Amino acid sequence: MNNFDFKNPTKIIFGKDTIQNISNEIPENAKILILYGGGSIKKNGIYNQVMDALSNYEVVEMGGIPSNPEYEVLIMALEIIKNENITYLLAVGGGSVIDGTKFISAAALYDGEPWEVVTNKKPNVKGMPFGVVLTLPATGSEMNSGAVITRAEFKEKMGIGGPALFPQFSVLDPTVVSSIPHKQLANGLADAFTHVLEQYVTYPIDAILQDRFSESVMLSLIEVAPKIIENPSNYKAAANFMWSCTMALNGLIQKGVPTDWVIHIIGHELTALYHIDHACTLAIITKSHYTYNFESKKEKLAQLAERVFGVKEGSIDEKAQAGIDKIESFYKSLGIKTKLSDYIDDCNGTAEEIAKRFTERGMIGLGEHGKVTPNDVVEIVKMSY
Amino acid sequence: MNNFDFKNPTKIIFGKDTIQNISNEIPENAKILILYGGGSIKKNGIYNQVMDALSNYEVVEMGGIPSNPEYEVLIMALEIIKNENITYLLAVGGGSVIDGTKFISAAALYDGEPWEVVTNKKPNVKGMPFGVVLTLPATGSEMNSGAVITRAEFKEKMGIGGPALFPQFSVLDPTVVSSIPHKQLANGLADAFTHVLEQYVTYPIDAILQDRFSESVMLSLIEVAPKIIENPSNYKAAANFMWSCTMALNGLIQKGVPTDWVIHIIGHELTALYHIDHACTLAIITKSHYTYNFESKKEKLAQLAERVFGVKEGSIDEKAQAGIDKIESFYKSLGIKTKLSDYIDDCNGTAEEIAKRFTERGMIGLGEHGKVTPNDVVEIVKMSY
Repeated sequence: MNNFDFKNPTKIIFGKDTIQNISNEIPENAKILILYGGGSIKKNGIYNQVMDALSNYEVVEMGGIPSNPEYEVLIMALEIIKNENITYLLAVGGGSVIDGTKFISAAALYDGEPWEVVTNKKPNVKGMPFGVVLTLPATGSEMNSGAVITRAEFKEKMGIGGPALFPQFSVLDPTVVSSIPHKQLANGLADAFTHVLEQYVTYPIDAILQDRFSESVMLSLIEVAPKIIENPSNYKAAANFMWSCTMALNGLIQKGVPTDWVIHIIGHELTALYHIDHACTLAIITKSHYTYNFESKKEKLAQLAERVFGVKEGSIDEKAQAGIDKIESFYKSLGIKTKLSDYIDDCNGTAEEIAKRFTERGMIGLGEHGKVTPNDVVEIVKMSY
Repeated sequence: MNNFDFKNPTKIIFGKDTIQNISNEIPENAKILILYGGGSIKKNGIYNQVMDALSNYEVVEMGGIPSNPEYEVLIMALEIIKNENITYLLAVGGGSVIDGTKFISAAALYDGEPWEVVTNKKPNVKGMPFGVVLTLPATGSEMNSGAVITRAEFKEKMGIGGPALFPQFSVLDPTVVSSIPHKQLANGLADAFTHVLEQYVTYPIDAILQDRFSESVMLSLIEVAPKIIENPSNYKAAANFMWSCTMALNGLIQKGVPTDWVIHIIGHELTALYHIDHACTLAIITKSHYTYNFESKKEKLAQLAERVFGVKEGSIDEKAQAGIDKIESFYKSLGIKTKLSDYIDDCNGTAEEIAKRFTERGMIGLGEHGKVTPNDVVEIVKMSY
């Protein structure tokens, strides 16, 4: 097991009818900017619950945070914060709204060009305090300090983070799941599942408990997935879905173990280039990445096949191959297609374009061994056509 | 799944050679009181590592915190804090030293009789900041906000807690395990294992992920136990042992599920009455408690038998009974005896004495259903004679 530091100060408020409690978490004299996305919260009642809970505060709102939160939109919030003397942010949404709010939190207290918060590669140690009302389980952003920001004019999708970017609190009310469209539920399940893969399918390092925890999250997602897809109003399934997504990426399972993230890093490029849903990009890349890097990952793939998918027979290689197939079957069971050509008409040149971007950014070796080169990326992406 | 709140702000610093990093966590101008136990830290080198790390601070020390931290000793620290203008506490030890430090933290900022911190039944919202260097994996106190304090003159062992009593940081260096005597290692393994049982062997509540996490901790402890007992210098086993003990009682696995704690509540009385090691009292009570309350616990016992001990055959009742037997075998595999008569010559009257104490304290119903009465306690304790 590797040495590690772990600290996660976010307060989770979990369960039915908990949105009404948010005023307990926000300073009395706060002036709040509420950030949300396309307006679905006005249809499903969450907007009204939030507004009722905040009736004793001065509140300003800004909707329209797009999925893959876009820099040009987010910086409009900085103007509002300045003009309205905002002191507290509240993200009401899924990963995109929360990630956007994290950028706004950091940029609001940053002296300089806001884009530098993304490009300066420094951990953010100052940020405006913010809370979250989660409306879409998937990304884990509600209990971590990372965010991914898009800048369309550069076709860039890049990560930020830092200790100041943990939400002060996050409300996880599983009843919100009942109004989420099928496609977003499927994406959330695939996204959370792949988060675990990125922290697990590397090489053995005798982290017995972390492996078991990762397997626990995957087993839970596999158990609830068909129930959620069949009936998103199934509260028991929704609660386990929601908590599993949070635990998949709140930092715990990655402590003391190597992590990969090649699937995400390549996937972000597919979203930046072609606007393919984030979760779908992960489903596109996973199989070819694991097939291309089979030798270095086969022990963990075999362990996954055995403990998560119940594959008891065969050699390490056979089990590992079965594991890759089972992962692909899981994506497909959610209705998510796993080839790039399922999403775009002409794949030609995509692999080289992504590798060129990585080279230009100075990315030499990716993955848990730091050995996945731009040339390897070309092969991996081509295998996914 | 039940609604829950979860927040755990303790920073964990885990791994080899990490004690030297504690000065990064303590304010520069702090005046530190170091608290420790019987002096084993002076033999195994931990004392010197701590002192080296704190060479730039003003430091006062107080050794001699006894196991089952005793009120009459702990209040001596309050005098030192006052006279020396201490601003920061550092617990260097196992659960007893950490628990004692939590009491001192709360009492140092309490206006009134220090014993009221224990008896006033209020969560502690003020405490002097403190850190931990863990020397004995077992109790989880290094990452939670609870403590158990003993007052010998009353033969009392009682719990305190509150949001102010989380350590600011805890250093978990698994190399400390190599110098721990066999008996304390066995006790640590049994203690941590029973912590999970108390949060798991209740009734099913569709908390899929929490159940899997609890099973993960138990599976990890079972896997490392023989390795630790055979060779405490096995770093890989020690690291998993240490992290499993912390995760067994840092609050995570109990969120959203019912908890029991009858084994601990009765066990504390056996320690208060007869000075039996805490972990041994748990091993004494577990089987009779689960046998006496078999009907209400059998579904979780059967699940435990199946998933943790690999019992695949039989009815729910048969699996549950096998689960109880496997738990007892686990204690015995550590060399821990499971009958009260293994520890004291004359058991007579013990059951009634414990029940009388509970009645006097106004305890009417214990356990996850609140239905274990003092009369039931008499039966449970008698079954353990």
